[in-house]
Amino acid sequence: MERIYNFSPGPATLPTCVLEQARDELLNWRATGMSVMEVSHRGKEFVELAERATATFRQLLDIPDNYRVLFLQGGATMQFAALPLNLAGPDDAADYVTTGNWGVKAFGEAQRYLRANEAASGRDGNFRRIPDPGTWRLSDDACYLHLVSNETVVGVEFHEVPDVSEAPIAADMSSTLLSRPVDVNRYGVIYAGAQKNIGPPGVTVVIVRDDLLGRARPETPTVVNYRVMSDTDSMSNTPPTFSWYVSGLVFEWIREQGGLAAMAERNRRKATRLYAAIDGSDFYDNPVDPACRSWMNVPFTLADTNLDAVFLKESAGAGLANLKGHRLVGGMRASIYNALPEAGVDALIAFMSDFEARHG
Amino acid sequence: MERIYNFSPGPATLPTCVLEQARDELLNWRATGMSVMEVSHRGKEFVELAERATATFRQLLDIPDNYRVLFLQGGATMQFAALPLNLAGPDDAADYVTTGNWGVKAFGEAQRYLRANEAASGRDGNFRRIPDPGTWRLSDDACYLHLVSNETVVGVEFHEVPDVSEAPIAADMSSTLLSRPVDVNRYGVIYAGAQKNIGPPGVTVVIVRDDLLGRARPETPTVVNYRVMSDTDSMSNTPPTFSWYVSGLVFEWIREQGGLAAMAERNRRKATRLYAAIDGSDFYDNPVDPACRSWMNVPFTLADTNLDAVFLKESAGAGLANLKGHRLVGGMRASIYNALPEAGVDALIAFMSDFEARHG
Repeated sequence: MERIYNFSPGPATLPTCVLEQARDELLNWRATGMSVMEVSHRGKEFVELAERATATFRQLLDIPDNYRVLFLQGGATMQFAALPLNLAGPDDAADYVTTGNWGVKAFGEAQRYLRANEAASGRDGNFRRIPDPGTWRLSDDACYLHLVSNETVVGVEFHEVPDVSEAPIAADMSSTLLSRPVDVNRYGVIYAGAQKNIGPPGVTVVIVRDDLLGRARPETPTVVNYRVMSDTDSMSNTPPTFSWYVSGLVFEWIREQGGLAAMAERNRRKATRLYAAIDGSDFYDNPVDPACRSWMNVPFTLADTNLDAVFLKESAGAGLANLKGHRLVGGMRASIYNALPEAGVDALIAFMSDFEARHG
Repeated sequence: MERIYNFSPGPATLPTCVLEQARDELLNWRATGMSVMEVSHRGKEFVELAERATATFRQLLDIPDNYRVLFLQGGATMQFAALPLNLAGPDDAADYVTTGNWGVKAFGEAQRYLRANEAASGRDGNFRRIPDPGTWRLSDDACYLHLVSNETVVGVEFHEVPDVSEAPIAADMSSTLLSRPVDVNRYGVIYAGAQKNIGPPGVTVVIVRDDLLGRARPETPTVVNYRVMSDTDSMSNTPPTFSWYVSGLVFEWIREQGGLAAMAERNRRKATRLYAAIDGSDFYDNPVDPACRSWMNVPFTLADTNLDAVFLKESAGAGLANLKGHRLVGGMRASIYNALPEAGVDALIAFMSDFEARHG
């Protein structure tokens, strides 16, 4: 059957072998005579699945023992609210660095919950660079410093953890978590919607240092209370069982591929080759400061935007799907997460070269 | 392959043909070359899926035009908080009727959000009957009256809509929605976690009358703000695509089976036969007032509780799974949702009769 190269920014491509396993056991999982979608989350088999998935995830990221791992619902967008609800009171302050549209959204949501201060923003430069951390206007009393490690729309990624803040760093790593090693110790909270490198939509992972638990406001909904969900191993209520299961299969796949060091190696190669192809051409352009170009999302424009529609049509015809850029930015965008094979990037580069030759 | 009869209370059994279709197209959905888990929720195919699923759902329940249908994340437990956040301010009042543990939980969550009044409770009678609506102590100024239409743990179901309240009724219908027709006009809000009669875990349906929109508190998280999610067709952020998709297949199955009238006919038959088998035996007992015995969840005890373990072992061996009662209640419980076939109930009754003959 014809699987194409899917450059979608999320929901995103999943490893084919993961889908094949899910398909093969969809009606009868682990000889239960039931689908994994039909079993009790409190039954022996699912509890084992959840424990194993969590253990593999912890191992991949080398998460220290003083951090909890939660599998929640609601997406990263729910975390834009859950983070301030869990970590701060309404009169407390928090610093936000906005390097793209997700950071702007997180900042906007936070303003309804506390005194959110925009310590730095990339918007003056059209989100093409990360302002020098030495220039960030940080508060003395911030409960946390929020940043978005990788911005999918503008293609801007922090390749280093800024070392400027006394306050714990809270990072939205939705589109980068599991693509490379992370020094979790540098963070207070990390959260990620699954639908990039983790699994299918429906589950959101939260990693939280345990000294930050237990200060949630009374009005925090129970199912996004970090302490409650930690104490109940993310099963205060029925968790998103199928998404958790598929994510567990993805974690195993990553482990078998050599873990995050191997992922980083491949992702660096993929990104480097694609940016090199863009930079080596007069027909394609990526405007982002090379110091913060994303490994995960590569936006680019054509010299002649009148050719955009033709480019999309021909690329789709060539089995390279979902290259259309975000509506806020226009142009093209190739999302090249873990499960997007190197061969897919090579195919894209070859197509782009051929397209330029024929149309440029 | 050996599918068993799964009496689990939720996550629950799904129609086999739905699982087969999901399996067959898991790697390549609608000739996209991608899984439905990998497509953009904003792409043409998924938007069509969402529209069709919503339309079928509206048709099954005959939902009037002045009601919105939302597909959210977080489960019914999130709705315990979302309901007061959306409908009332912190100084407002709401009435709660508690006929089982879910009503008690909803009432507990609500107390952190507004002045929640327990207008009536079944706890004095050990949750075996619904207090006469004529005796409910309703507030003059309640923003809404909350009830749980079917309580899964104690097996208590409202077979009529109480006609006592000026305030709009907000009903948790998690374990009964789509099992029988509902007069939606009698309600202000209906919500339901999927994992009983709707689909797999991960999606929660909310039906809300449009005059109740637009009054959410500022601190309502965006992804559970009824107005925002309605205006964005439940896609303010990435929705739980796979759970929505499987639910859509379930809606089609129900429609093909003859809709909610057919479901009600079968469910009434299943419940009637099982309760008759219990009542006709000296060995089994169900203590619930017949006027409110649930069609969905049938708890029962054995005359000799020392035989509980043997009963569970033998029933599992006979392909009748997950009959263990809830830990709060003990004993046994058969959950007999739409997708639990009549043949499954017959097999259970035959097993129970045989067990009694051998052990009773």
